[in-house]
Amino acid sequence: MKETDVVVIGGSAAGLTAALTARRHYPEKRILVVRREAQVLVPCGIPYIFGTLKSPEKNVMPDAPYEANNIELMKADVTELDREKKVLQTSEGSIQYDRLIMATGSLPIMPPIPGFDIDGVFAIQKDIDYLQGLLDRLQSAKDVVIIGGGFIGIEFADEIKKMGNANVTIVEMMPHCLSLAYDDEFCIEMEEVLASRGINIKTAAKVEKIAGKDKVEAVRLADGTDVKADAVILGIGAVANVDLAKKVGLRIGLTGGIAVDQTMLTSDPSIFAAGDCAEKISFFGGRPTGLKLASIAQTEARIAGANLFGIKRQNYGTVGVWSTCVGNFALGTAGLTEAMARQRGYDVVVAVVEGPNRHPGGMPGMAKTKMKAVFEANSGVILGGQVRGDTATGEMINAVSACVQKRMTVEDIATFQIGTHPALTASPVVYPLVNAAEVAISKMRQQG
Amino acid sequence: MKETDVVVIGGSAAGLTAALTARRHYPEKRILVVRREAQVLVPCGIPYIFGTLKSPEKNVMPDAPYEANNIELMKADVTELDREKKVLQTSEGSIQYDRLIMATGSLPIMPPIPGFDIDGVFAIQKDIDYLQGLLDRLQSAKDVVIIGGGFIGIEFADEIKKMGNANVTIVEMMPHCLSLAYDDEFCIEMEEVLASRGINIKTAAKVEKIAGKDKVEAVRLADGTDVKADAVILGIGAVANVDLAKKVGLRIGLTGGIAVDQTMLTSDPSIFAAGDCAEKISFFGGRPTGLKLASIAQTEARIAGANLFGIKRQNYGTVGVWSTCVGNFALGTAGLTEAMARQRGYDVVVAVVEGPNRHPGGMPGMAKTKMKAVFEANSGVILGGQVRGDTATGEMINAVSACVQKRMTVEDIATFQIGTHPALTASPVVYPLVNAAEVAISKMRQQG
Repeated sequence: MKETDVVVIGGSAAGLTAALTARRHYPEKRILVVRREAQVLVPCGIPYIFGTLKSPEKNVMPDAPYEANNIELMKADVTELDREKKVLQTSEGSIQYDRLIMATGSLPIMPPIPGFDIDGVFAIQKDIDYLQGLLDRLQSAKDVVIIGGGFIGIEFADEIKKMGNANVTIVEMMPHCLSLAYDDEFCIEMEEVLASRGINIKTAAKVEKIAGKDKVEAVRLADGTDVKADAVILGIGAVANVDLAKKVGLRIGLTGGIAVDQTMLTSDPSIFAAGDCAEKISFFGGRPTGLKLASIAQTEARIAGANLFGIKRQNYGTVGVWSTCVGNFALGTAGLTEAMARQRGYDVVVAVVEGPNRHPGGMPGMAKTKMKAVFEANSGVILGGQVRGDTATGEMINAVSACVQKRMTVEDIATFQIGTHPALTASPVVYPLVNAAEVAISKMRQQG
Repeated sequence: MKETDVVVIGGSAAGLTAALTARRHYPEKRILVVRREAQVLVPCGIPYIFGTLKSPEKNVMPDAPYEANNIELMKADVTELDREKKVLQTSEGSIQYDRLIMATGSLPIMPPIPGFDIDGVFAIQKDIDYLQGLLDRLQSAKDVVIIGGGFIGIEFADEIKKMGNANVTIVEMMPHCLSLAYDDEFCIEMEEVLASRGINIKTAAKVEKIAGKDKVEAVRLADGTDVKADAVILGIGAVANVDLAKKVGLRIGLTGGIAVDQTMLTSDPSIFAAGDCAEKISFFGGRPTGLKLASIAQTEARIAGANLFGIKRQNYGTVGVWSTCVGNFALGTAGLTEAMARQRGYDVVVAVVEGPNRHPGGMPGMAKTKMKAVFEANSGVILGGQVRGDTATGEMINAVSACVQKRMTVEDIATFQIGTHPALTASPVVYPLVNAAEVAISKMRQQG
């Protein structure tokens, strides 16, 4: 029987990061990653296979870090786990371990809609052959319907539109696309950008069934409309892959993920979990949250990997930081939106500022940046921020995230020392994050 | 005599921001800004007048915020100040004030070099007519020498090169350009970029004199070399403009700025100072620092403006956060470089990481981002970071600044919750800031 100190099940964002972190913290330990896939896809890169990269092969995570960091990689299916004996059974043999990290990821949600198994209906499986099949199918598709207007849905829509001349329609149940992460005004802007790129959007639209005999023909909406379709993509989210965890009796959380404490330890003192398979709690109030992102997975993996043989790190809850873009139009969000904050019972002060991302405004590349910041009214602590801007939005939202994580107040942020440059950022006089804090202070003063 | 509650002397980054901040915090107060200039230039935009904007008129700060915020603007020269009577004399009449903010800015350093007053030698005066004169001169210049390879020097060099076919030479006294803000390896990269754009660079080169009779002919170096020149630009820094402050007996600090406490109050209990004219202390150890940036000016102005009638904000010292770029090659710095930290006596652990700013690496717009982070070895607190990357560098450095200002440790940063996106940022697995923290932890472990 193979022996190792650490075995990690899964080799995507969480599994790889957990193994690399374990290596850094425990240079002397034997570390083994067991994964099913011959090659692992960059999870967030999947939409870009279609219009930009044009092949799943171009969206593969390199395996070089394994050898470079003395981490053994085994490509095998996990068949059994004996927690008492600390033995993992795989299709390539058994492994005796000391510590185990579950990084089994998630599976796409299959909706309770008649017809989702008709030929031509695709979920977003993280599998090269499956996605190559989808890519082939889309080459000749004339009418593509995407069910779900979250970030995966809108990114797929734009990428498929880029492929050629298909009619692309997003069907979203909520009143707006992206509404689980952005306030309405940002969602509406994104919908306008998508529409300007020729994408059809049907919001507040419930799917009744997917119609077709041998292959998909249409998506039938609750109002009776048929949306013609020769390919349908389901982008309505993912559920934690907890098959193995359930089978071996690990505790499962309220949202269906493997229950973990703040050190990422499961109910078994030798087993940690990280990433999409792990239950998450919110940074805001500690309630369970179903948010699943590769960036969250890597943070959890850094905690789990470091804590394997001695607790060093703690998870203070998921902030939820992410960005998306369609062309040069980017959105970023960190923490709570106004709607989320109010819904959770916070008394909030909201500031919205908009201005050029260059100074003077005549500098090349000028675009308007809009920032909305949400503060708790009593303490002035920032609860979240949303940014709409150019490609620097992806980094700008990380500065907002720092403010949220360090529970900075309006006053902290008003005197935040920023760097600015004519060709790279807004003017210091109206720098969005700082200016939003000043606007919030003015509002608090008026209300106080 | 005119009466006002607040008078601000100066209308650039500090003066305007101080007035706007005062308006937010004291809606009922009368606020008056006295400035000399008919139009104020965006200070950081000045280099871009030459190759990009092609006119000083396109680099003007709009005056609209004055009227929009009920701030009176007086264009006048200040002639006298009676601190006892709280009366400011100007060329447009006297003003009775209750609180005064000095935002008189800085003046270019005129070096102790023979010949700096010859025709064709230009300092960087923040004056439209003067800069129009320089622009006119540069239209026909064949050989331009820039004395000083700081950020102003390199930005001018690149902009003048863009204008046409002039030979452009930077003469820098230190071993490398930008060495007051970046460690050598970043300076060298920037020098290579400048050289690839056809700019000549002479480092470790001391200027002996500027030669010429009626007009400038050459810059003579200490080694005897003559660098041909029909225009010379002095970009060797600026000194606080404290003429008025000295005349009225305000205390002056060790670097020559108006002495202020952490609330930005001067030695006169009714007079605050902010921006280039004010003495600065370092965030790192509290020693005086000569750093002058518009972004620092605005932070100080927000403190001074808020504190006018009741102390609300405090200046914890200047971090020093800024970025520069030549084309799409950008550098950003926040806090101490490795060299600065060691020179100040810190025991440091340094981490350098480099990787693609997109994921997978085949995504369009991919460029390599390099990050160097400097940590204090005992506490693990981050002292500074330097980034070399694309145009998002200007925002990335602000996330680093947040970490520095909140005195985050390697461990805080290793579990920092970042947002990532294939088309906007690095992969979460190797996100530069987080990865740098992990590298530093590994190094500490090896050393510990």
